[in-house]
Amino acid sequence: MNIKRKTTIKDIANVLNISPAAVSKALHDDSRISEKTKKAVKQVAKNLNYHPNHLASALRKGKSNLVGIIAPRTNSHFFSSVVQSMEEVLNKKGYNIIMTHSNESYKKECDNIDTLLYTQVDGIIASMANETIDLNYYNKIKTKGIPLILFDRGENDLNVDYIGIDDYKSSRIIVQHLVEQGCKRIAHIGGYKHTRIFNNRIRGYMDALKTYHLPVEPELLLEGSLTIEDGRAKMEQLLQLKNRPDAVYAASDYAALGALQILQENQISVPNDIALVGFGNEPFTSMVNPSITSINQHSEAIGKLAAETFLEYMKAPVIKQSLNKKILDAELIVRDSSQIKG
Amino acid sequence: MNIKRKTTIKDIANVLNISPAAVSKALHDDSRISEKTKKAVKQVAKNLNYHPNHLASALRKGKSNLVGIIAPRTNSHFFSSVVQSMEEVLNKKGYNIIMTHSNESYKKECDNIDTLLYTQVDGIIASMANETIDLNYYNKIKTKGIPLILFDRGENDLNVDYIGIDDYKSSRIIVQHLVEQGCKRIAHIGGYKHTRIFNNRIRGYMDALKTYHLPVEPELLLEGSLTIEDGRAKMEQLLQLKNRPDAVYAASDYAALGALQILQENQISVPNDIALVGFGNEPFTSMVNPSITSINQHSEAIGKLAAETFLEYMKAPVIKQSLNKKILDAELIVRDSSQIKG
Repeated sequence: MNIKRKTTIKDIANVLNISPAAVSKALHDDSRISEKTKKAVKQVAKNLNYHPNHLASALRKGKSNLVGIIAPRTNSHFFSSVVQSMEEVLNKKGYNIIMTHSNESYKKECDNIDTLLYTQVDGIIASMANETIDLNYYNKIKTKGIPLILFDRGENDLNVDYIGIDDYKSSRIIVQHLVEQGCKRIAHIGGYKHTRIFNNRIRGYMDALKTYHLPVEPELLLEGSLTIEDGRAKMEQLLQLKNRPDAVYAASDYAALGALQILQENQISVPNDIALVGFGNEPFTSMVNPSITSINQHSEAIGKLAAETFLEYMKAPVIKQSLNKKILDAELIVRDSSQIKG
Repeated sequence: MNIKRKTTIKDIANVLNISPAAVSKALHDDSRISEKTKKAVKQVAKNLNYHPNHLASALRKGKSNLVGIIAPRTNSHFFSSVVQSMEEVLNKKGYNIIMTHSNESYKKECDNIDTLLYTQVDGIIASMANETIDLNYYNKIKTKGIPLILFDRGENDLNVDYIGIDDYKSSRIIVQHLVEQGCKRIAHIGGYKHTRIFNNRIRGYMDALKTYHLPVEPELLLEGSLTIEDGRAKMEQLLQLKNRPDAVYAASDYAALGALQILQENQISVPNDIALVGFGNEPFTSMVNPSITSINQHSEAIGKLAAETFLEYMKAPVIKQSLNKKILDAELIVRDSSQIKG
């Protein structure tokens, strides 16, 4: 086994015959160090495989340099892509992230918050569980003065920074697209109304139906957890209607996939008999046959913006007071599941 | 906003007119409490929406009740499924997990270890990054006396508990299956040899070729990072060979998917011109067309066993000394990409 002592700033200083303080300044791009020295220090650091101990230096400054993340699910490409993009931005600034998952459970989310507060994170970036209605626990973070930034699933009542896409408009774009394909009876497999993003999608769906003078019927609007299994169950329910829909818009790609499975098991042609649209642009939407039309949620931009919002707090904890609400424009990616060749 | 005081053990005790200590014992299924009282306590706890503060009680006992996880990737179904299954077992015993990702980088993995040690986790369950060769950092965990359990990608040299599948045998099963389909020139898009699991897959592939008297040629054995992009690049390389393979076995489903994309872009029929097998049984393997034959890695069993191994340490830190090496049997799931109808 290859046991090596870790390279320190002192090792770099010895090689270049300069002071450790100068090495530290050079590594932090201090203006008091010449470009030539900076270049030399960075080259030696690379050659010696120098790995800075962010945590040690952070703790000296009374900071953990950790950012806690709470994501509702482990296996969604949207969330993992948001987190990856956050990580890229945060790592560059010397922050590491620790992740927790609520698995859509309120109880677990409370545990996650306790865990992250215990580990003394410098901030928390979270997306709420489906179950969460009580905001008490999130207020605990605010009370402790720790920056809290919500993304995707956030509650306006908390009055914290929020980054997400325009869910209301996304629904309107989807309905408009389906109307253009000739669909006249559009069902919605929606999320739980108490979650603002799903409520916005439902409102957008209903308002768009009214705009196009299409039927707004309770039997066409279903609420659920939006998993594959939920999509299957809801599609089965829709197929039992006397007056079946000719299009289904599911508020998640997973539910859309479940719906597609049921349609195919029942030899119903997609999109010709029933057109289908999902939400989230998960990678599998372009892999399945037919490929599934979906909304691009700009996961990378969301992750980047959430990380940058956190960094603003770190730069100026006193100045940064104003609430950021960044709503990104959604983009419809049209694929085979909704392109009716009439 | 609905601000509620959190229910405490005292509240439950007041309702039932018993002592808080009795409530606590009842909630922990203590044998000194009658079944009738236990039932009553649990019912009241449920009615009052009681949420135990595991962390507070853990800290009193000098434990964090946190288990740290290091996974190489954020967006792999295998890893998220392993973690979910670990979480189920650990949550039931009052442990919460915090996750970090190495993104296949050795430097990040060192940061992850520092972070987890700083948060005083009771144990670390990890799967190594592709880049990791130096085991110094992992030894740091052992030196601190913190249980370390490796899964999937682990190094025997560390002499710690390990849970994984039989990679060598998996390769042999794959080659046997391809030979039975009539394939005679089998290429392998493999992982990096320095990672034991990938080395075992390469060894299994080579030994099986010898068993069936098939050509073992350097040009048919490629090493890489096994991403979709890597699979694309390696498949392009294989297509440029004078003597093309009639089957490709990729050591990850992502690489297999990349290979499939290139084959389809070049109008090469799968499986008839070139048969294809992946590894990992990611959900997309059954969604794409043709569906991809793959090895089921038993992610749920791996997660469960890793969690249980950790719990053994917690039960008996002095007694648990012997090294567990649990190797699960792999299972080949045959799909369209390798079923040649002759």
